[in-house]
Amino acid sequence: MPKTKAQISVSLDGYMAGPNQSEKDPLGEGGEALHEWAFNLASFHEMHGRHGEGERGVSDDVLRPTLDRLGAVVMGRNMFGPIRGPWPDDEWKGWWGQDPPFHCPVYVLTHHPRDPVEMDGGTSFHFVTEGIETAVAAAKEAAGDQDVAIGGGAFTLQQAIVAGLLDEIVVTQVPILLGGGERLFDRLPASTKVELAAVVEGPDALHLTYRFG
Amino acid sequence: MPKTKAQISVSLDGYMAGPNQSEKDPLGEGGEALHEWAFNLASFHEMHGRHGEGERGVSDDVLRPTLDRLGAVVMGRNMFGPIRGPWPDDEWKGWWGQDPPFHCPVYVLTHHPRDPVEMDGGTSFHFVTEGIETAVAAAKEAAGDQDVAIGGGAFTLQQAIVAGLLDEIVVTQVPILLGGGERLFDRLPASTKVELAAVVEGPDALHLTYRFG
Repeated sequence: MPKTKAQISVSLDGYMAGPNQSEKDPLGEGGEALHEWAFNLASFHEMHGRHGEGERGVSDDVLRPTLDRLGAVVMGRNMFGPIRGPWPDDEWKGWWGQDPPFHCPVYVLTHHPRDPVEMDGGTSFHFVTEGIETAVAAAKEAAGDQDVAIGGGAFTLQQAIVAGLLDEIVVTQVPILLGGGERLFDRLPASTKVELAAVVEGPDALHLTYRFG
Repeated sequence: MPKTKAQISVSLDGYMAGPNQSEKDPLGEGGEALHEWAFNLASFHEMHGRHGEGERGVSDDVLRPTLDRLGAVVMGRNMFGPIRGPWPDDEWKGWWGQDPPFHCPVYVLTHHPRDPVEMDGGTSFHFVTEGIETAVAAAKEAAGDQDVAIGGGAFTLQQAIVAGLLDEIVVTQVPILLGGGERLFDRLPASTKVELAAVVEGPDALHLTYRFG
């Protein structure tokens, strides 16, 4: 049964990106350190086309199923790029170069229509102006029997949680403080039902899997 | 070697008390649910003078050493009571009745001087106007070879962390959302050094021990 999932990294103070996001600092100031636990994992290398490199172990076991079963991605516009307001042209095609690491259709939430963009390696960007429910529905149809990943940022994930669209999230907690930025667990109503489904201690980070009721 | 420690419960969104704290709701709206994991533990019953009652197990093993080695407590004024500004009289003696569960000297941070108060069962309240460093020094001297616990609230703990006074904190994470209140990990500079020292999965909560560098 395909799922709608997310895999994010947060600091001890709960931030999934540092303060002052910009084209120079797509993850905000200090935000890069949130992802260091993943950079040398075998599955992370494979996602970037470098097969046979990197380390295996418990953190790789956490990341691998998410990547292996990736059928489509939904993300907010700020995760796609630094441009705000109407698209000035078709120049900006994401942070990830000509061959992005998704290798599947990516649905970008935006208030401003834009034609789809085909990239190399199976990635395509589709711009959805009708909101999170429409984006997740399109992603599910594209993913078939694979999973849909909600990529971020925080506001996109919060909308998915409140709308009951997210089945499961792996929150990788990294023992650093960012002091500011965007929190995942914010603006969520106290009535939200959530269950801690799994705890895995990696060498550099703690992986906590939550399911929503 | 005696330590300065803290043991707190937080929601998934990081709050150690709910919104709108008041005399009716000392832990804020919904905040009581943060502590349910502890209410039926043997060590919690013992702290309240009910020996031989309650459950043992991993959560009891987490709580017990903190209580067994308790030599003195430091807390902020809002944890002591709902009164703000100068003390109108000596009537308010904490939330806990004539025999509070501390059984040791308690140092209360306040801007308003007040004479110490002796309670039953070994608890006494001392009012410190010179700040967290003075309060922790007095508590350490009173505790001798026992530990000092910093009780809360969030702002008191943040001051202790920033001043380098807190050796260790056990953060018990409860899978509920409070949607507002006071966060432990807030207002802390990104330069704060912290290490995840232990992970214990209890039946109702996850116990995470952090050490500060």
